[in-house]
Amino acid sequence: MTMRRTLDFLLNDWLDVSTLTTRPRFADHSAETFTAVLDVSERIAREKFAPYNRLVDTEEPSFDGTRVMLPQATLDATRAYAEAGLRSAGHDYALGGMQLPYVMEVALRSFFLQASIAIDGYTMLTAAGASLIVAHGTKHQIDAFARPELDGRFMGTMCLSEPQAGSSLSDIETQAVPDGDDFAADDLGPRYRLKGSKMWISAGEHDLAQNIIHLVLAKIRGLDGKVVPGAKGISLFIVPKMLVDANGHLTGERNDAAIVGLNHKLGYRGTVNTLLNFGEGKFPVRAPSGFDGRGAGAIAYLIGKPGEGLQRMFHMMNEARIQVGLGATMLGCAGYEASLDYAQTRLQGRPSGPEGKDPTAPQRPIIEHADVRRMLLAQKAYCEGALALSLYCARLVDEKATGDPVLAADAALLLELLTPIAKSWPSEWCLEANSLAIQIHGGYGYTRDFPVEQYWRDNRLNMIHEGAHGIHSQDLLGRKVRMEEGRALAILGGRIAETVRLARQHDVLIRDTDALTTAFATLQSATATAWEGGDREVALRNSVPYMQAFGHVVIAWLWLDVARVTVERLGQSGDIAFLRGKLHAKRYFFRYELPRVDAWLKPVCERDDTFSDMDTAWF
Amino acid sequence: MTMRRTLDFLLNDWLDVSTLTTRPRFADHSAETFTAVLDVSERIAREKFAPYNRLVDTEEPSFDGTRVMLPQATLDATRAYAEAGLRSAGHDYALGGMQLPYVMEVALRSFFLQASIAIDGYTMLTAAGASLIVAHGTKHQIDAFARPELDGRFMGTMCLSEPQAGSSLSDIETQAVPDGDDFAADDLGPRYRLKGSKMWISAGEHDLAQNIIHLVLAKIRGLDGKVVPGAKGISLFIVPKMLVDANGHLTGERNDAAIVGLNHKLGYRGTVNTLLNFGEGKFPVRAPSGFDGRGAGAIAYLIGKPGEGLQRMFHMMNEARIQVGLGATMLGCAGYEASLDYAQTRLQGRPSGPEGKDPTAPQRPIIEHADVRRMLLAQKAYCEGALALSLYCARLVDEKATGDPVLAADAALLLELLTPIAKSWPSEWCLEANSLAIQIHGGYGYTRDFPVEQYWRDNRLNMIHEGAHGIHSQDLLGRKVRMEEGRALAILGGRIAETVRLARQHDVLIRDTDALTTAFATLQSATATAWEGGDREVALRNSVPYMQAFGHVVIAWLWLDVARVTVERLGQSGDIAFLRGKLHAKRYFFRYELPRVDAWLKPVCERDDTFSDMDTAWF
Repeated sequence: MTMRRTLDFLLNDWLDVSTLTTRPRFADHSAETFTAVLDVSERIAREKFAPYNRLVDTEEPSFDGTRVMLPQATLDATRAYAEAGLRSAGHDYALGGMQLPYVMEVALRSFFLQASIAIDGYTMLTAAGASLIVAHGTKHQIDAFARPELDGRFMGTMCLSEPQAGSSLSDIETQAVPDGDDFAADDLGPRYRLKGSKMWISAGEHDLAQNIIHLVLAKIRGLDGKVVPGAKGISLFIVPKMLVDANGHLTGERNDAAIVGLNHKLGYRGTVNTLLNFGEGKFPVRAPSGFDGRGAGAIAYLIGKPGEGLQRMFHMMNEARIQVGLGATMLGCAGYEASLDYAQTRLQGRPSGPEGKDPTAPQRPIIEHADVRRMLLAQKAYCEGALALSLYCARLVDEKATGDPVLAADAALLLELLTPIAKSWPSEWCLEANSLAIQIHGGYGYTRDFPVEQYWRDNRLNMIHEGAHGIHSQDLLGRKVRMEEGRALAILGGRIAETVRLARQHDVLIRDTDALTTAFATLQSATATAWEGGDREVALRNSVPYMQAFGHVVIAWLWLDVARVTVERLGQSGDIAFLRGKLHAKRYFFRYELPRVDAWLKPVCERDDTFSDMDTAWF
Repeated sequence: MTMRRTLDFLLNDWLDVSTLTTRPRFADHSAETFTAVLDVSERIAREKFAPYNRLVDTEEPSFDGTRVMLPQATLDATRAYAEAGLRSAGHDYALGGMQLPYVMEVALRSFFLQASIAIDGYTMLTAAGASLIVAHGTKHQIDAFARPELDGRFMGTMCLSEPQAGSSLSDIETQAVPDGDDFAADDLGPRYRLKGSKMWISAGEHDLAQNIIHLVLAKIRGLDGKVVPGAKGISLFIVPKMLVDANGHLTGERNDAAIVGLNHKLGYRGTVNTLLNFGEGKFPVRAPSGFDGRGAGAIAYLIGKPGEGLQRMFHMMNEARIQVGLGATMLGCAGYEASLDYAQTRLQGRPSGPEGKDPTAPQRPIIEHADVRRMLLAQKAYCEGALALSLYCARLVDEKATGDPVLAADAALLLELLTPIAKSWPSEWCLEANSLAIQIHGGYGYTRDFPVEQYWRDNRLNMIHEGAHGIHSQDLLGRKVRMEEGRALAILGGRIAETVRLARQHDVLIRDTDALTTAFATLQSATATAWEGGDREVALRNSVPYMQAFGHVVIAWLWLDVARVTVERLGQSGDIAFLRGKLHAKRYFFRYELPRVDAWLKPVCERDDTFSDMDTAWF
């Protein structure tokens, strides 16, 4: 069965998204409009994205010193996406949007991520940049930069990292100075001249659109020639590749944002990844203001106030991270579907019982082998569990934005807590799913004639970008579980207890409710133990194993909640095979995966100091 | 520290290889000759292999319809290896060999596998083929085919799989018929005409040598036009690409072995992988005998008796599997060394304690972060543990071949038991090590500018070839633990008990001895539970989780045994940093890895039927 079926089930039967249409913002919507937008997305993804996923890998972006060349398919696909109005799906009608709930936006994006995550990269970054400008920009900035991004004319990037500063953004060295005495009088916002190098910039240069709107983190240099050290000194700027007037029309002037070169990647090759130099004088723009005497610097417009750059940027991070997790999930789903198809059609071997002894009997589809089923069930449990997590978190975004105010506060806190999991868990386990998909294909899976090796390569990025695993584990154990004296964790505990209460009405789920309750209790106790004494460095020693355990508990909880709904539908004579499959994937997760939690938490509970105790010279 | 140091420690301090020189076969050797051969190997690997490892990946083999093109570096490297006499390192003096113990042969091969596993592929296959001919061929066959392989003139392949028969060799369709009435009178062995397609043939075509000696599994067609079904019908043939006379001189005749095309792989790209057609008439050879009326068939010489093909081929499999495991191990070591170097030099972030709060303080090497140490320690524990396993198994090969006859029988049984682990465990965990090496590099690790992504791609093959994971798990639980009423498992238990007894003399190891004893007891009990009732299909339901647990117990045992020796050396004032590192890797393994065993064995102990219970329609 394809993922669409599961997506519909999770949206309708589990999350009951049609109830969102009772909210004023979504009042024009209905179950039918939700379905229609999924249908359109599925079709465009199938026709414009999926057929070219291998092509954009083999015909990697190239750079001739000036221009970046991409396959025509990338242009056609991103254009079809924009022309369907999907870039502004979640935005206000006033901005040309559809005012779709965020959970539906995530749902529609799933098709594109599964069809070709690398082609989708251009759109994902543009949408994220536009949303940031809409949320924090002035009306002029929205009109001049965000609107053309939403309607398809412009594209965007996020410029955070630098060659010497990846995970530690407080160490960025890009600087900005006011652009002349009238710098504060520009319609487009306080105008600066910006200089510095930005690394790992996806979609940093291409000809897919008239313009590229870079959102750049930089430090404002004070009159004393110094910058504020650390994160507090970081501000956020809009740096358009081509300058625009207050109405968003191109002035014909090229800004000083120059590509230096491409990063050649393991996977995700269709999304060009660049090193950019801002303000180094390759494209001198307007009258030089004498910045360092080496050219003018790139023209940049401040968003928000000086020093608020990280805050502004991270405002969008919950959503960006849900989408990174979703991307990992959908790569997992793509591999699951490919390997399921292969397992159903590839004939090899015979049953291991007595009936398999006859060598003249025809070979059987490999799906009949227990170990192939193991690998399929594991993929199903990982990918559908991860999809449930992505959708659940997206639903929390809607609760936070449009829900009952009292509940919205809880939703916001729970979302904060679950975001590191929504990003990291699919990145780790749907990558493992892709490895299992290769394994099912045997030697064929190791060739580029089948799609699964590419999924595996593409997916490996997701544990690295938008915050590496280690960073998220520190966010989770160092900050999220402690927020408001542990209230987020308590809210999670309450939701787990509610699932357990409902699930216990079904005899078939009682064993699992006990296992989940025990696992969550262990997790709570490990949390407390880690923080005994309150020393942050000690507490975070084992943050990654802690996060792995946390993730498995969360996914077990969601699987139990999905199973609870599944059992109800079974009683209402739904599609038996589909529903039994859900229950079986849940069963796999509880029997084969949840028991791992103890092994991860053991060192946490023992406050194990193996890592801090290791001397650098001993390696 | 480099792996050489660890290799020397494991060989000398742990396995005490110099005692082997008391055996007649190795009497000419000494600690000095052992060291000398390692030194030569390390140098050739460093000079001729390592510098070209990326090159053979990017300049992938190409095929113009007739010839396969490889980089010059591959020719130079394989030639340097052969010219140093290393191909025959383990063979008799009479064959031009060095009569090195197998453990030393494995040790010397480790350098090449780490430097460039793909360049090494040609040599590995040639050596395996030559060894098989030496073990099972006639004197004429040895002289004509094996000698030139050992001295560097010829190369070889192993042709087992077919497009429709990968893991299930009993279903191969390649056939052979006697070549004329005088077929039994050829000096080179009973001569047949052979037809069929062979898939996944590494080194199947190239110009690296005068000749390629294919070892081919095929079924002899009887006078009734039929073949014996199943594995019993399989025979083993020598099929030279160029025909030779009884002295191994080329006759100038091309045999009918034709390359159809290349497989384009995820990794391991430097080793060309081909689909070969035998006897399809592309190169008709000598007078056609009318085989099917479609050309003559390829000329093939039977090795051993008809129907003994699988037995003959698998005779070499223990050694081949140790070397596949070693290859996975050395890729892991390569990634460990690269990421250790990166972690020591890359500056990023500050300590998480109070001293890290000052953003103006310089950034610190990332090796100071606890989570980076976690990833380094995990790699160290996986890779050095796997290396210990490879060497231990190689040492068992020597025990079996040249040891005291009573002990040799035990060694042979233990080797049988450990072989599936020696192949599968490094394939799984040193791949995970490579993923951690990428993670330590962050975004840089995801680029092709650093070597780690290639190691990860290369290593992914090792869970697939030479028997996929699932096959080995069935071999382990279905056959090996039950051999001679469980005597192999009992021997392993005895060796573990002996390690525990010795380790308990050191207070610092007592906690680990308890953990290991408990884990092994759980494993024994899981073995018995799986086989309750004696139904093979039921027993093997959870064979992969069983094998994963088995592997972790074995590695824990070897780490404890290495640690025991380490503690002794510490008392003798050895290199403290080196020795502490060993103990710390052992500590990591016992605290973070061994606890996983319970989670894997739980479904085995519960005889969980989740996989067999899953209906195909439910996926």
